[in-house]
Amino acid sequence: MASSLLSTPSRTLAPAPAPAGLRGRAPAQAHLPRGVALGPRRSRALRVRASVAIEKETPESEPPPTFLREDGQGAGSGSVRARFEAMIRRVQGEVCAALEEADGGGARFVEDVWSRPGGGGGISRVLQDGRVFEKAGVNVSVVYGVMPPDAYRAAKGEAGKNGAAAADGQKPGPVPFFAAGISSVLHPKNPFAPTLHFNYRYFETDASKDAPGAPRQWWFGGGTDLTPSYIIEEDVKHFHSVQKQACDKFDPSFHPRFKKWCDDYFYIKHRNERRGLGGIFFDDLNDYDQEMLLNFATECADSVLPAYIPIVERRKDTPFNEEHKAWQQLRRGRYVEFNLVYDRGTTFGLKTGGRIESILVSLPLTARWEYDHKPEEGTEEWKLLDACINPKDWI
Amino acid sequence: MASSLLSTPSRTLAPAPAPAGLRGRAPAQAHLPRGVALGPRRSRALRVRASVAIEKETPESEPPPTFLREDGQGAGSGSVRARFEAMIRRVQGEVCAALEEADGGGARFVEDVWSRPGGGGGISRVLQDGRVFEKAGVNVSVVYGVMPPDAYRAAKGEAGKNGAAAADGQKPGPVPFFAAGISSVLHPKNPFAPTLHFNYRYFETDASKDAPGAPRQWWFGGGTDLTPSYIIEEDVKHFHSVQKQACDKFDPSFHPRFKKWCDDYFYIKHRNERRGLGGIFFDDLNDYDQEMLLNFATECADSVLPAYIPIVERRKDTPFNEEHKAWQQLRRGRYVEFNLVYDRGTTFGLKTGGRIESILVSLPLTARWEYDHKPEEGTEEWKLLDACINPKDWI
Repeated sequence: MASSLLSTPSRTLAPAPAPAGLRGRAPAQAHLPRGVALGPRRSRALRVRASVAIEKETPESEPPPTFLREDGQGAGSGSVRARFEAMIRRVQGEVCAALEEADGGGARFVEDVWSRPGGGGGISRVLQDGRVFEKAGVNVSVVYGVMPPDAYRAAKGEAGKNGAAAADGQKPGPVPFFAAGISSVLHPKNPFAPTLHFNYRYFETDASKDAPGAPRQWWFGGGTDLTPSYIIEEDVKHFHSVQKQACDKFDPSFHPRFKKWCDDYFYIKHRNERRGLGGIFFDDLNDYDQEMLLNFATECADSVLPAYIPIVERRKDTPFNEEHKAWQQLRRGRYVEFNLVYDRGTTFGLKTGGRIESILVSLPLTARWEYDHKPEEGTEEWKLLDACINPKDWI
Repeated sequence: MASSLLSTPSRTLAPAPAPAGLRGRAPAQAHLPRGVALGPRRSRALRVRASVAIEKETPESEPPPTFLREDGQGAGSGSVRARFEAMIRRVQGEVCAALEEADGGGARFVEDVWSRPGGGGGISRVLQDGRVFEKAGVNVSVVYGVMPPDAYRAAKGEAGKNGAAAADGQKPGPVPFFAAGISSVLHPKNPFAPTLHFNYRYFETDASKDAPGAPRQWWFGGGTDLTPSYIIEEDVKHFHSVQKQACDKFDPSFHPRFKKWCDDYFYIKHRNERRGLGGIFFDDLNDYDQEMLLNFATECADSVLPAYIPIVERRKDTPFNEEHKAWQQLRRGRYVEFNLVYDRGTTFGLKTGGRIESILVSLPLTARWEYDHKPEEGTEEWKLLDACINPKDWI
């Protein structure tokens, strides 16, 4: 089946004028799920060198029992791939049910299912213009792709340097990979109810077709972060406490490390500010027991509802005025800036031809940009901005 | 003076998590004016290799008579640099005056002036929340910078390959450059009044400091393009006719070539659609007489008001309903996508630390993203989208 997922020659992915020949021609399709971000070194390498070629998706009327290839590696129900897919699909269902309940009957999730002929697919669920939520997207996807050997070497360091190189010294071949992830962004209407983002993802590389003996690699990534327009300390403390509890069940180093990683990742460099008040973030995680990390990712995903729903319940009906709403809209603009300019999953997906509506469901329904807007020092708006510029320890 | 504009080591400009060390530290400053886009090859090379280091700007209370360095190359009043600066500053004044008049006393332009200690600076003028215009920005800037020799070679092809290389075979040094430009985006409130963008820019490279005998290069770039939410043929034909008239005064090949270049450049690849209905666009233009091209850029800049003001006057008070406004807001979202993801001036400016408020003044006051919005076939919204997907010859 892998032969239907062709790799194309390495080329620059940087934006360039579209050749006229592109017009009217179906673009080469590739897809990484919105939640499947790439590690720093991998991301850079791919940006320059890579083309990950994946088939165009086709709509499906019903979600299949699994998006895993039946005849592929790790298709057994006890495999990490299978258990991760089962976990993200369970969490998708639970999160959507809880959000519909929180929305109080205002709106329902609509579902789009797609698959790819060679295996893989996804389920996008979106609730729009509800009573509580302006826009809420909860996506899962499973991708079989091929990454160029150079990108793979860059990604995996020393181990990877031998990864795709055949033992007999032949030229390294493209490296097939598997990626599964859940990704979600929840934008409430009320300016005092924060935006939430989470995604959890699992990667595996297969042996190269040209080098069957090459080692396989796996890693986990993900995170949950909170983006309020106003700081309500009780809420922010609660959110970070739940993240810490999830981390502390596994390793005392996790929370401080992943909290800082989150502050570093959701950084709008051109503004010198973060998009929000952080949470946890990790990537390329494979230096622990694989079972332990699967359990950790599961624990994190299961912590989303207890971390977030109580906050939304408390704030969804808080009275607000036009100034509060305008400030929320300006912060939504920052959210757009981060996602379109920096977020690896988004930028990679856009440049390689992923399912655009699934990728961009993370964008808010509405956003605003005012020229040179500066909150007055000491105001609630200023306090939020200050906390985005200077990340704090909330607990 | 050039010694105060230090080049930094080549590094990847791709987004990456900010190291914690960046926090609280003033980032290295660099700036390319919003209107100073880079050519295709140059853009790619810089994206990967370059760091253009320019000093941080300082606010000024009054615009100086010139932003040119007094003791620099081409500072004489008859030089192309000086005449180009005079032209863009004149046009800035005329465009702002005409827009204030069209706004009917609703709002006035506010002005921010800045300069850099080593030379160069800019004037940003912004009119916000007027009677007719939601947001109108008209910026001029003059930049003295340094580009790495590799980027310069990539930029100028064969000629450039010798550009920064010293005749005695020493390693090529960084290439000082001069750039001046005017850039403007005008977003009216009425959904039947189109958005307009124009920018015109002039580049020169100086002799490399390490290779004083190296040849100097110069080139012009720019364009004017129209982004309506609804097609009113009379308006679109008028707009393109004025562009053609300006081109035809200089070379019969200009209009067909620059019209197509515009359709190719303002392409939202991940949507397979253009952001609007085009106009003219050109870059790296130096294969004509320099005086002729200076006159051509001047003619184009002077054509902005006759191309646009009659359209705005006709449409500023057209009755509209909420659906018209929502569609305009969705198209505004596409504008944001193009500018943040593809526009070379914007992405380069963001990644190198330009004056953010000047760069992002191009973004609309408000924008909207709905999940999987598809206009019904045959509607006015569908017709606009169709014309963005399949560019037409309007005249």
